[in-house]
Amino acid sequence: MTKQTVLTGITTTGIPHLGNYAGAIKPAIEASKNTDVNSFFFLADYHALIKCQDPKRIAESSKAIAATWLALGLDTDNVTFYRQSDIPEIPQLSWVLTCNAAKGLMNRAHAYKAAVQDNLDGGEQDGDKGINMGLFSYPILMAADMLMFNANQVPVGKDQIQHIEMARDIAGRFNHHFGDTFALPQAVIDDSSMILPGLDGRKMSKSYDNTIPLFETEKKLKKAINKIVTNSLEPGEPKDFNDSAVFDIYSAFASESDIESMKQKFVEGIGWGNAKKELFELINEELSGPREEYNRLMQDSAYLESVLQKGAEKARAVSGPFMSDIRKKLGMGIL
Amino acid sequence: MTKQTVLTGITTTGIPHLGNYAGAIKPAIEASKNTDVNSFFFLADYHALIKCQDPKRIAESSKAIAATWLALGLDTDNVTFYRQSDIPEIPQLSWVLTCNAAKGLMNRAHAYKAAVQDNLDGGEQDGDKGINMGLFSYPILMAADMLMFNANQVPVGKDQIQHIEMARDIAGRFNHHFGDTFALPQAVIDDSSMILPGLDGRKMSKSYDNTIPLFETEKKLKKAINKIVTNSLEPGEPKDFNDSAVFDIYSAFASESDIESMKQKFVEGIGWGNAKKELFELINEELSGPREEYNRLMQDSAYLESVLQKGAEKARAVSGPFMSDIRKKLGMGIL
Repeated sequence: MTKQTVLTGITTTGIPHLGNYAGAIKPAIEASKNTDVNSFFFLADYHALIKCQDPKRIAESSKAIAATWLALGLDTDNVTFYRQSDIPEIPQLSWVLTCNAAKGLMNRAHAYKAAVQDNLDGGEQDGDKGINMGLFSYPILMAADMLMFNANQVPVGKDQIQHIEMARDIAGRFNHHFGDTFALPQAVIDDSSMILPGLDGRKMSKSYDNTIPLFETEKKLKKAINKIVTNSLEPGEPKDFNDSAVFDIYSAFASESDIESMKQKFVEGIGWGNAKKELFELINEELSGPREEYNRLMQDSAYLESVLQKGAEKARAVSGPFMSDIRKKLGMGIL
Repeated sequence: MTKQTVLTGITTTGIPHLGNYAGAIKPAIEASKNTDVNSFFFLADYHALIKCQDPKRIAESSKAIAATWLALGLDTDNVTFYRQSDIPEIPQLSWVLTCNAAKGLMNRAHAYKAAVQDNLDGGEQDGDKGINMGLFSYPILMAADMLMFNANQVPVGKDQIQHIEMARDIAGRFNHHFGDTFALPQAVIDDSSMILPGLDGRKMSKSYDNTIPLFETEKKLKKAINKIVTNSLEPGEPKDFNDSAVFDIYSAFASESDIESMKQKFVEGIGWGNAKKELFELINEELSGPREEYNRLMQDSAYLESVLQKGAEKARAVSGPFMSDIRKKLGMGIL
C-alpha cells in the first residue's frame, strides 16, 4: 500500500497564537509523526499576497511560523516543510490549471461571492469593486498546491471544502484531456478539532482581537490570561464550569484527571484569580520549553532559512520532474 | 542613453506562412539588427495553452517557429530568444501581478467580452459558458511577459493595444504600492506593416484557410501560387494591377523597379499564368536559401533546443535577480 500524502498550507499573514496552537499546529504535528503518511507543510506566502500588501508583516509572519512549527517539534526529516514561493513549479502548474479551469467555476466560489455581496450590500453598483484577481483566482493556486504533490488528503475547515472540490474538478478535466496525471485530493474535516475560546469567550481569532499569545514572554502570557472575561462571582461561591472560558481553555491542555479535579474546584467555589493562576501554570509548563527554543530560533534567521531551503530541495525533487512530465504532456517539453 | 527594450511573443499554435513572414517575421528580424535596441523574442507556449489542447500541434509549432526565425537570420548573439515556459520567473511574476490586478480590469478585456457576446448571441443564458480562466486571465500573463524584462516597446496589432494599457495599469499599481519597480511598456503600432493578401484576396490568415506556405517544398509553393484567385481575362487583355492579389503579393517582395515593370506588364496584358510564374520565381529566389536552412534545422532538434536553452539562460540572467528583488519587496525573500 502506498502512503497517503497529506498537505497543509499556512498563510503567512499572522503570528501564531494559542488558539492556532491548540486547534491546528499541535494536532498537525502529532499527525505528522504517523509514518504511514507522507506529510507536506508549507508557508503559503503567495496566498498571503491576496489580502496583505504589507511586506513587513508577511516577512515577520513567515519567520514566526517557521520558528513556531520547528520549536513545537515538527520533524523536518520526516516531513517536507517549505516556503511556497521557493517552488517555481507551483505557479507554473497554476497557469497550466488556469487554462483547464472554467471561469464559471470561479464565479461560484464562496469567498468571491461573499466579497461581491458585501459590495452590493454596501450600495455599490459594481459588485467587483475593489476585488483583485488574486481573490478571484486563488482556488486555482490552491489546486496547484495540492496537485503538484498529488496530495490525497487535505485537512481543512468547512469553509475550504469547496476549494478541494474545485481542485478535483480541475484535476479531473486535466486527466480527461491529457491522460491520468493527478490524484484527486480529498478534504479531511476534523470535527473533533479543538476550537479554543478567546479572551471574550468567542472563538479565539485574530479578527476578534481576543487572542492569547503563544510564544511571547511568560509575563505577557500571564497578563493575557488575567484578562479572560469571567462573571463577578466571589471566591467561595460555586461556579459553572459549563460556562467558563477559563475552564474551557484549561480543559484544552489538562489531563483527564486534572480536568475532573478542576470541575470539583469550580463547584467548591475556587476564586477566579486562583483558577487563572492554575491555568497559567498549566499552559506555561507546556510552553516554556518550546518558547525557549522559539526565542533561540528567532535569533537565528540563517538556520531557519537553511531548514526552508532544505525543504524546498526536497519538495522540488518531486515537483521538478513532475512538472517536466506535465510540460511534455502539453507539448511544451524539450524539442 | 539606455537602450530601449523591445519584446515580441509568438504564440505556438501554427506553422508560419508567407503572410507571417512578410508582415511580421521579416520586419521584426530587420528591426532587431538595430544595435540601439535590446530585443527579446519568445515562443509563447503558455499562451498557446489557452486555446489549444493539442500537444502535438504545440510541439510542432514550437519547433517550426524556432527553425523559421533562425533560418531567416535571427541573430541570437544580439537578441534574447527563448521559450516562455523555460522562464519560471514569468508565472511567478504573473501570480504577483494577479494580486495587483483589479478583477474589473479583466471584465473589460475585449477578447473576453467578445467571447461572452458570442455566447449570448448564440442564445446561451450563461455568458461565461465554455470560457476558461486562461482566456479571462491572460492579460495578466502578458503583463508578466513584458514587465519581467522591463520592456519599453511592444510591437502589436491594434487588437492588442488594450493589453498593453492593462499592463501599464497593473505596473503602475505595483509601483505605487511597493516603490518604483517596473518600466511602463508602450504599444508600437506599425501602420505601414505589410498585410499580405491570401489565395482568395482577403488577408492571408490561417483562420481563412487561404495561406501560402513559407517553407514547404518549392513544388507546394508553386502549386499554392497557381491557386491565387484571378479574374477570367485572357492573355493579351489589359489587367488592373490595383485589384489583383497576384500583383499585391508580388509588390511585397519586389524592388521598386520590378514593381514598375510588372505594372507595365499588367497594362500590356500579361497572362495570369506568366504573372504567377514571375511571382513564384521572385518569392522562391528569396526563400530557397532560408528554406534549405530551415529543412536542415528541422532535422536537428538537439541544436534548436540548445539555442533555446542558451536563450533561456540569457533571459534568466535578467529575470532571476529581478524576481528576487521583487520577492524581497513583497516580504517573500529569504529570512
